Amino acid sequence: MILILNGPNLNLLGVREPGIYGSRGMESYLDELRRRYPDIEIEYYQSNHEGALIDKLHEVGFREDCQGIVFNAGAYTHTSLALADAISAIPTPVVEVHISNVHSREEIRHRSMISAVCRGVIAGFGLDSYRLAIEALR
Amino acid sequence: MILILNGPNLNLLGVREPGIYGSRGMESYLDELRRRYPDIEIEYYQSNHEGALIDKLHEVGFREDCQGIVFNAGAYTHTSLALADAISAIPTPVVEVHISNVHSREEIRHRSMISAVCRGVIAGFGLDSYRLAIEALR
Amino acid sequence: MILILNGPNLNLLGVREPGIYGSRGMESYLDELRRRYPDIEIEYYQSNHEGALIDKLHEVGFREDCQGIVFNAGAYTHTSLALADAISAIPTPVVEVHISNVHSREEIRHRSMISAVCRGVIAGFGLDSYRLAIEALR
Amino acid sequence: MILILNGPNLNLLGVREPGIYGSRGMESYLDELRRRYPDIEIEYYQSNHEGALIDKLHEVGFREDCQGIVFNAGAYTHTSLALADAISAIPTPVVEVHISNVHSREEIRHRSMISAVCRGVIAGFGLDSYRLAIEALR
Amino acid sequence: MILILNGPNLNLLGVREPGIYGSRGMESYLDELRRRYPDIEIEYYQSNHEGALIDKLHEVGFREDCQGIVFNAGAYTHTSLALADAISAIPTPVVEVHISNVHSREEIRHRSMISAVCRGVIAGFGLDSYRLAIEALR
Amino acid sequence: MILILNGPNLNLLGVREPGIYGSRGMESYLDELRRRYPDIEIEYYQSNHEGALIDKLHEVGFREDCQGIVFNAGAYTHTSLALADAISAIPTPVVEVHISNVHSREEIRHRSMISAVCRGVIAGFGLDSYRLAIEALR
Amino acid sequence: MILILNGPNLNLLGVREPGIYGSRGMESYLDELRRRYPDIEIEYYQSNHEGALIDKLHEVGFREDCQGIVFNAGAYTHTSLALADAISAIPTPVVEVHISNVHSREEIRHRSMISAVCRGVIAGFGLDSYRLAIEALR
Amino acid sequence: MILILNGPNLNLLGVREPGIYGSRGMESYLDELRRRYPDIEIEYYQSNHEGALIDKLHEVGFREDCQGIVFNAGAYTHTSLALADAISAIPTPVVEVHISNVHSREEIRHRSMISAVCRGVIAGFGLDSYRLAIEALR
Amino acid sequence: MILILNGPNLNLLGVREPGIYGSRGMESYLDELRRRYPDIEIEYYQSNHEGALIDKLHEVGFREDCQGIVFNAGAYTHTSLALADAISAIPTPVVEVHISNVHSREEIRHRSMISAVCRGVIAGFGLDSYRLAIEALR
Amino acid sequence: MILILNGPNLNLLGVREPGIYGSRGMESYLDELRRRYPDIEIEYYQSNHEGALIDKLHEVGFREDCQGIVFNAGAYTHTSLALADAISAIPTPVVEVHISNVHSREEIRHRSMISAVCRGVIAGFGLDSYRLAIEALR
Amino acid sequence: MILILNGPNLNLLGVREPGIYGSRGMESYLDELRRRYPDIEIEYYQSNHEGALIDKLHEVGFREDCQGIVFNAGAYTHTSLALADAISAIPTPVVEVHISNVHSREEIRHRSMISAVCRGVIAGFGLDSYRLAIEALR
Amino acid sequence: MILILNGPNLNLLGVREPGIYGSRGMESYLDELRRRYPDIEIEYYQSNHEGALIDKLHEVGFREDCQGIVFNAGAYTHTSLALADAISAIPTPVVEVHISNVHSREEIRHRSMISAVCRGVIAGFGLDSYRLAIEALR
Repeated sequence: MILILNGPNLNLLGVREPGIYGSRGMESYLDELRRRYPDIEIEYYQSNHEGALIDKLHEVGFREDCQGIVFNAGAYTHTSLALADAISAIPTPVVEVHISNVHSREEIRHRSMISAVCRGVIAGFGLDSYRLAIEALR
Repeated sequence: MILILNGPNLNLLGVREPGIYGSRGMESYLDELRRRYPDIEIEYYQSNHEGALIDKLHEVGFREDCQGIVFNAGAYTHTSLALADAISAIPTPVVEVHISNVHSREEIRHRSMISAVCRGVIAGFGLDSYRLAIEALR
Repeated sequence: MILILNGPNLNLLGVREPGIYGSRGMESYLDELRRRYPDIEIEYYQSNHEGALIDKLHEVGFREDCQGIVFNAGAYTHTSLALADAISAIPTPVVEVHISNVHSREEIRHRSMISAVCRGVIAGFGLDSYRLAIEALR
Repeated sequence: MILILNGPNLNLLGVREPGIYGSRGMESYLDELRRRYPDIEIEYYQSNHEGALIDKLHEVGFREDCQGIVFNAGAYTHTSLALADAISAIPTPVVEVHISNVHSREEIRHRSMISAVCRGVIAGFGLDSYRLAIEALR
Repeated sequence: MILILNGPNLNLLGVREPGIYGSRGMESYLDELRRRYPDIEIEYYQSNHEGALIDKLHEVGFREDCQGIVFNAGAYTHTSLALADAISAIPTPVVEVHISNVHSREEIRHRSMISAVCRGVIAGFGLDSYRLAIEALR
Repeated sequence: MILILNGPNLNLLGVREPGIYGSRGMESYLDELRRRYPDIEIEYYQSNHEGALIDKLHEVGFREDCQGIVFNAGAYTHTSLALADAISAIPTPVVEVHISNVHSREEIRHRSMISAVCRGVIAGFGLDSYRLAIEALR
Repeated sequence: MILILNGPNLNLLGVREPGIYGSRGMESYLDELRRRYPDIEIEYYQSNHEGALIDKLHEVGFREDCQGIVFNAGAYTHTSLALADAISAIPTPVVEVHISNVHSREEIRHRSMISAVCRGVIAGFGLDSYRLAIEALR
Repeated sequence: MILILNGPNLNLLGVREPGIYGSRGMESYLDELRRRYPDIEIEYYQSNHEGALIDKLHEVGFREDCQGIVFNAGAYTHTSLALADAISAIPTPVVEVHISNVHSREEIRHRSMISAVCRGVIAGFGLDSYRLAIEALR
Repeated sequence: MILILNGPNLNLLGVREPGIYGSRGMESYLDELRRRYPDIEIEYYQSNHEGALIDKLHEVGFREDCQGIVFNAGAYTHTSLALADAISAIPTPVVEVHISNVHSREEIRHRSMISAVCRGVIAGFGLDSYRLAIEALR
Repeated sequence: MILILNGPNLNLLGVREPGIYGSRGMESYLDELRRRYPDIEIEYYQSNHEGALIDKLHEVGFREDCQGIVFNAGAYTHTSLALADAISAIPTPVVEVHISNVHSREEIRHRSMISAVCRGVIAGFGLDSYRLAIEALR
Repeated sequence: MILILNGPNLNLLGVREPGIYGSRGMESYLDELRRRYPDIEIEYYQSNHEGALIDKLHEVGFREDCQGIVFNAGAYTHTSLALADAISAIPTPVVEVHISNVHSREEIRHRSMISAVCRGVIAGFGLDSYRLAIEALR
Repeated sequence: MILILNGPNLNLLGVREPGIYGSRGMESYLDELRRRYPDIEIEYYQSNHEGALIDKLHEVGFREDCQGIVFNAGAYTHTSLALADAISAIPTPVVEVHISNVHSREEIRHRSMISAVCRGVIAGFGLDSYRLAIEALR
């Protein structure tokens, strides 16, 4: 099982700032991913609550059947040390992903507080970033 | 409809540090506002949870009957990029308000992470800041 | 009496960068304000000279009939400690206003040297910022 | 009554990074504390949600029977101004504690946003930090 | 055709600091890649000379048959504005890759001068980072 | 017509610190320029008052017969955002000039607040900098 | 002859913030100084205009009968490089004075832009700072 | 044996700034401590000399009968790397204590140069900080 | 003889980002310059290699027939201390030129490492910057 | 009684760097001062030991017959928070003096750690700075 | 064998800025060294190309007969992370040398990017720095 | 005569952190040095007192028979401006030495306050650093 974990405002994918995030919703993209990787169970969870994301990491991060977590922490990427602590507390590998190229946006989005404790980082390929992360975790 | 949205610790208005925030509670002030602007429906929501504030912005920010949001993000003003993202994700105009003059307080309160994505900023007029924001949104 | 005090380059309102400052001149706006608030005497003064603005604050700031000063210090907002000293030297309340949302412009315009000594700050509502300041001072 | 309040990831005590936090769980340690201080009612609350911690501080911080709060804010220590505001809003004294010596860890953990509004700080004595805080509050 | 472009010290792959970069040489890895993607012509170029890397980007970056460039700029990632200029000067998409997780290494390796002008970034997956970049470019 | 506009302390040219600024006065240099470019009307204005320089830019900057302004803002180069605003408010092109090489002097003189809104910058050629600016504007 | 030169807001001495600047006006203090030093001609000039202060320094700074200038630049002390240039351009020695101890006030008042080019600095002795400067110049 | 080691200006306890440090002298407090912990030999040493404090740490830090050192380094806490080196050079555990809450005082007192090499830190409990440190060392 | 020396990516002039650098190639521009200044031998050299640029400066910088070097160091302007050393090592005067106004581009392009050791700086006049530099060197 | 207190390296006055500190020794200067102010007992103490300077401040700072301390802390001015604490701990007024104009020397000498707690500051008048301080204390 | 490796502009030794680097050429100095240490084979290589220096380090750094490398990286000392990577990639010990005392020159020369990965550093002894490095490597 | 001068904590050589400083004491090393250089009188002095080190520099630094001082200032290297002043006050050349490679340790140890006034710097060769300094001074 692989968990795709989405942070704040990513429930608005397809709606919010399509110039940056594209016009496709997460639901339809998840369908495509599941069709493409039929042998992997892909779970999905999104929350705007930092605490709920931590809870989820704790809950899934110790499950033996979990191969990895694909985590787009949204804006919490740049402000949340607590999420970084949660990631380093669990044995499951976590891959940090971003839809947009965060480095070509505002200064504050150039610094990630979670990169150092993630297995790796994939950014800038649109929704395809999630697929590449699954490729990396396989 | 206009939403007045209050962030962390603002449930203690009238109780907390009256030297800075005054001794009047939000309830009584809302009554006054509603009497003053009988033609505007004024909704009110307060939460200490960053995630709940984001949820509320998403919920209200796409409603066609919403003329605007008067947002006092409290301390999250200075630390939450996720709230800034939520504001820029919704079409409804948001006005940032502060009861105290944040610029005459500690250094960290001089920087706002949400000002850049709000329509405008009103700070330092006590509870009257909310009324001025309603004036601005009309 | 309320003084509307405008700093450098604001004599070009309606001419300069209309994308940022709008295309309406101050004269026509003052007419509207005076019609709207017939019971308030609204004086107006503009100068590109930092020293002349200080002189004006000294001159008006001790007059008993002055209810307040609505001050758009333009670029001096971000560089003039002397204006801040002048404001804190006078008993009349001063409200800082900005036509544009200074926080969504260049970095240097995010820091105000006068906010801390003003009664409050109103920014981002176009020329309407002046009216809101008058509302705040009433 | 004394409240022991634990922030994010501290539900994993005994599980998470035992090299830093030790291998003992909070439950067994609370038993020991209660046996050691039979005359003090020791309540315990943990949450990964910043908002829930603020709610708890508000709820307990005005209770007359509360002698003090022993607060390990975990990673929120270094990022949450809202928690600092909550602490300064309540009359009950709060003691900041840390299990590890935060000053010998990464740079970001050297700065605490809540120390200035706490009664005092105790850090680096393992779980014994909580006991020392109770000693301080007695 | 896809060009894999390697910067300074990457000629020592398999020899240099195997704890960080692994013990496999680039030659053997290229063989594997070419077997895996038989339909893509994979060219390879490595140089320790910043100028030679710029020359190569110019030479390949305008070729119509070039689908993309997978670029591991090594230490030049963090110091070379000239490489950034070369990347933004060519029409071919460039993907930035890193073998190690640069964010868990020294401070200076957290800042990339080329990320902003690359299509995307992939870091931390060992040699597999190159394969993921090819996946992204396809 | 081209305006040569000189800022603070440049009335002392030929008198002040000849090691840095040379021993020739502006008057004699203007004569030479006018002889060299008989087809261009060269106006000259100097003031030590920031406000007077802004006034002059406004006055000349909208005149149709003005081909450009050669502006040596002296020390205001490094401190005046208001002058930068004045330059960007007018349609006439402005060329920033400096007599000395400001980059080989104190740190504070390395940063110009007006360069970004000028057409170009010429520095370090002594009085000849003015002539080069006229060449550039022709 | 010695010139006492006062910068912005110092025309309000005795009126403005008496807690910091005392309640005595400059006129009465000048009388005392002139009585105390009958053999020295003491001139006095005050302006809120940076440019006017520069003009005055130029005018007096080359007069052969001028023994020195006692300069309280007020807030311009901390922001005006142009005044620093004016001081270094004239042969007359200038002594920087401050009524209050600027180092025990806000951060921005700790840095002086003119100290480096003045003969010396005297700060913190109330109006007596001016007398000490005259003592120093004799 | 436990050594209580006091740094600069702490000989003035009870005399110096009683608003911050209280009005009780160290002598009377030591009596109380010795009565409270009759089974522990409590030695005391104070010096205003950084070098003498280092000498003392060297002298006591290798004594086998020394259980620990309770160290209030006063202002040297914030400036002395040499004391930090001395602490890390000795095998005896050292606990850093402060009478006042250093984090609610000036910026420079927020950074400790010795925390990282001490066993733990206790700050803000008045003289009781020393007792808590003894509790921690037992 | 005057050498025009071009740094990295300037071989793409006319091709690369025409919005910034224009659409004219260097070859055609050199022809024009040589026609305009028939009495000056104009040599031209371009390289993307920092070392090759240093070699060229050494080679030409001691030639007696060289009147000066017009140097557009491209991105190396902002990162190369070695080029600065090369310039200060040779007796021939060097003029720094830029096609675009570097001060209106990204932050990193505002700082030049070579300005301090060049004779002067000319920036922002398109290809005409080269001609102005020749004017300056004559 | 007034104490003249000299810090590190000031025992070398007249010997050390005469270009900065002059060639006159302290002994001969003290004689002159005592002759000039026969009604004031002038004590003198110099030490290179920070601790000894603190001891002296404590010893003299509570003596009723001490009118003030003239303190040249030498390099400790810029590094010693402990001396600042000693000054604020004693009731006697302390005047900070410097022989040279510290603001025209290296950056590190522009910041004083003791100015904020001294009565006032006098700098740059050579040995005469001491006399002016005595004038100030009378 | 010991390699003496010289970076950019050091081919001009004896020619360039003799006030800083002395007037002796490297050739004559190498002769002296070889005479002094007849039992050590001393190789010499200089390049202005960062990449060529990396190539040389790779080539020599794995040779078994190489006892060490004496490396004066010139200006690359302060800007080249790629050279630092090359040094840490090879097993041969590298000693960093400088002819001048880099710490008494400009700020940028105080920071070395290669010191941390070199065996040791020797700076400031003129050409003798090379001999001392050979002494250190023996 | 050459003085070897050791600063704080270096009396513990051979005892303190042998992983960094080695396990050999200074006494035995001095014996070796004296045997190796029988023609040089080698004096030795160590103190943990900044003031005592200054005193020693003054005492020895003017002695005609002193060829130089080999100075390991330990942690004072990074914090003591007073030692820097002492070194620049004496005519005898001083060589700064460090046993460990300070540049591969914590950030604060990368900056030396005394390097700029020493003749040269030798760091990272263990105790051999002292011998190399003697070689340099001969």
